[in-house]
Amino acid sequence: MIGRLNHVAIAVPDLEAAAARYRDVLGARVGAPQPEPEHGVTVVFIELPNTKLELLHPLGEDSPIKGFLEKNPAGGIHHICFEVEDILAARDRLVAQGARVLGSGEPKIGAHGKPVLFLHPKDFNGTLIELEEV
Amino acid sequence: MIGRLNHVAIAVPDLEAAAARYRDVLGARVGAPQPEPEHGVTVVFIELPNTKLELLHPLGEDSPIKGFLEKNPAGGIHHICFEVEDILAARDRLVAQGARVLGSGEPKIGAHGKPVLFLHPKDFNGTLIELEEV
Repeated sequence: MIGRLNHVAIAVPDLEAAAARYRDVLGARVGAPQPEPEHGVTVVFIELPNTKLELLHPLGEDSPIKGFLEKNPAGGIHHICFEVEDILAARDRLVAQGARVLGSGEPKIGAHGKPVLFLHPKDFNGTLIELEEV
Repeated sequence: MIGRLNHVAIAVPDLEAAAARYRDVLGARVGAPQPEPEHGVTVVFIELPNTKLELLHPLGEDSPIKGFLEKNPAGGIHHICFEVEDILAARDRLVAQGARVLGSGEPKIGAHGKPVLFLHPKDFNGTLIELEEV
């Protein structure tokens, strides 16, 4: 069911410093910060040859990564995202097998303009998993 | 400098249960457990179209992931691995820019039989980064 690893998302306390580290020290292709107010984050995309990284920094009061950074002030890997062909079929299969979908259970439009769902980390070894329909 | 994302490594408290979740619930291509006594882990490889996941479980008394699982009993993402063409050149560039290489600073032969180094998570937003020469 799951396809490509779409991205690894890393929450960071200082977006400019983190972007500079990846660009200058690791020599990666690092984009400009993109505010995404509807998702409560500012994102820096890092393009690798086979996938991408997303550096996330909170934007606004209700950012979904605010609590994570309070618990992990230095930052850390926040989630990984797998691509699926049909997100409703994926959700139904997951739920039928007892996995928990976060929130209402209905896909939302994610940061790339595609439908996404998040799965409960307790069902997947402490790993927050995003599914994105592509 | 960094190339492909070689893998995402996830430490898990129960390797069989974790492998079954990825195989049966997420429908991924999951390999058989491979003991790697010289690295202190048993690994299950999960092949995705563009990269792979590695489920890690401690093997032996001195496993490098034992402490991580004590702090994160449910498991969690342990590290991400980037490919580099020349690991000594990569190390020298990193050290020249103030990044810390773990251990002796000399590459070791990693789980895929290639030279690897680990970078200090404090220098990269709480993310443990492995570099592997390919």
